[in-house]
Amino acid sequence: MNFRDLHVPGDPLLLPNAWDYGSAAMLAAAGHKAIGTTSLGVAAVHGRPDAAGATKNETIALAEAMTGLGVLVTVDIEGGFSDDPAEVAALVAQLGRAGVAGVNLEDGRPDGTLREIAHHQEIIEAALGHGVFVNARTDVHWLKTGDDAGERIRAYEKADGIFVPGLTDVAAIAEVVKSTPLPVNVLYGPPMAELAAAGVARVSTGSLLYRASLRGMLAVLQDEQPPMPAYADITAVLPQPR
Amino acid sequence: MNFRDLHVPGDPLLLPNAWDYGSAAMLAAAGHKAIGTTSLGVAAVHGRPDAAGATKNETIALAEAMTGLGVLVTVDIEGGFSDDPAEVAALVAQLGRAGVAGVNLEDGRPDGTLREIAHHQEIIEAALGHGVFVNARTDVHWLKTGDDAGERIRAYEKADGIFVPGLTDVAAIAEVVKSTPLPVNVLYGPPMAELAAAGVARVSTGSLLYRASLRGMLAVLQDEQPPMPAYADITAVLPQPR
Repeated sequence: MNFRDLHVPGDPLLLPNAWDYGSAAMLAAAGHKAIGTTSLGVAAVHGRPDAAGATKNETIALAEAMTGLGVLVTVDIEGGFSDDPAEVAALVAQLGRAGVAGVNLEDGRPDGTLREIAHHQEIIEAALGHGVFVNARTDVHWLKTGDDAGERIRAYEKADGIFVPGLTDVAAIAEVVKSTPLPVNVLYGPPMAELAAAGVARVSTGSLLYRASLRGMLAVLQDEQPPMPAYADITAVLPQPR
Repeated sequence: MNFRDLHVPGDPLLLPNAWDYGSAAMLAAAGHKAIGTTSLGVAAVHGRPDAAGATKNETIALAEAMTGLGVLVTVDIEGGFSDDPAEVAALVAQLGRAGVAGVNLEDGRPDGTLREIAHHQEIIEAALGHGVFVNARTDVHWLKTGDDAGERIRAYEKADGIFVPGLTDVAAIAEVVKSTPLPVNVLYGPPMAELAAAGVARVSTGSLLYRASLRGMLAVLQDEQPPMPAYADITAVLPQPR
């Protein structure tokens, strides 16, 4: 199964994002053939700030563990954990050798500004050619930085896909799809049927599932002694002692 | 606040068990003054078998991160990650220096059998004296190994508390409470009011919250495009970028 082939405009791949081995293993057991990671979730697991380049080693370790699950794995590597295209290329190549199918590379920076367009373009192009699907992400809408989304989407066009988080208006999403030859990825939110009609190729859950998991945790304690539900059978998908 | 003082027979401490920084931070934000860890959760986060001594470093790292949350922290150290009393003592002392308030030490072994009574007694006694509340756990009922629970509870009596997972019959729990001068800890399940009436001093959620969190994750994807709920605000409790 080729990860690229799962990106079908009009029939979007629903890509759930995991944050640890357990969440990834449960998503794989639930039948998802491709699983991403969420940098917010990885940061929260380890008590680090998100999107601040603080979890490179933890992200690599998670990616490597997930490649053992028999699913396609795509990794949120934030801005590449470096501003040096050669360092980003080395990371992508390392992940590719580990069996990772894709990465996301965002132009948003820890301080809420964006990389210069030409700089992020250079980083994206350095990440290509390592057998890894490079999803270029622009944070123009996510971070509300300005009005150069169209220019950025064109500049990143050598990538394998384009991710535009922060857009929830389906008509605006359809405009993005028309503006680029790349498969378009948006965040989960609007009805899937509407995203399909807009020509979207991939829908990611981002940090939604991590937040939902914490809500599932708190609900147990906030209720007044709720009945014991059928909890997730995590032990069935863990490695066994040798 | 002294961790020991929270163990009041007849007015049990409800102790939630975390598995990563994010879950611990959310439980602290929800007002819990004492938070434990779950070895199953820690194993699942890192893709290791549970109760197999495979997560010593990860457990220490989690404990150290949790001590920054301003809550009392008690750590599930399985069987002590060693059969050598001196090594277990060194680990408990290290955790105590890091600000940890308590540990659980179980007699169950990875192969489903129990340590010899005198051996586990020696390990418990080596763990005392480091300023850390030592909760001795016997897995007789949990692993259904035999009928020497009473003998084990007596043998571990120098500990600060006794944990008997696997007992769900409240009358049997009340018998355990009567049999020992130690504060008694059981797993969450029976109504809290009944556990209080039985004289229980501490009720732990064990792996329940980790399982519930995964269920919260799966529920989002199993529903047909559910309405977006108010998800847990994890970003509010994460460190901020500097």
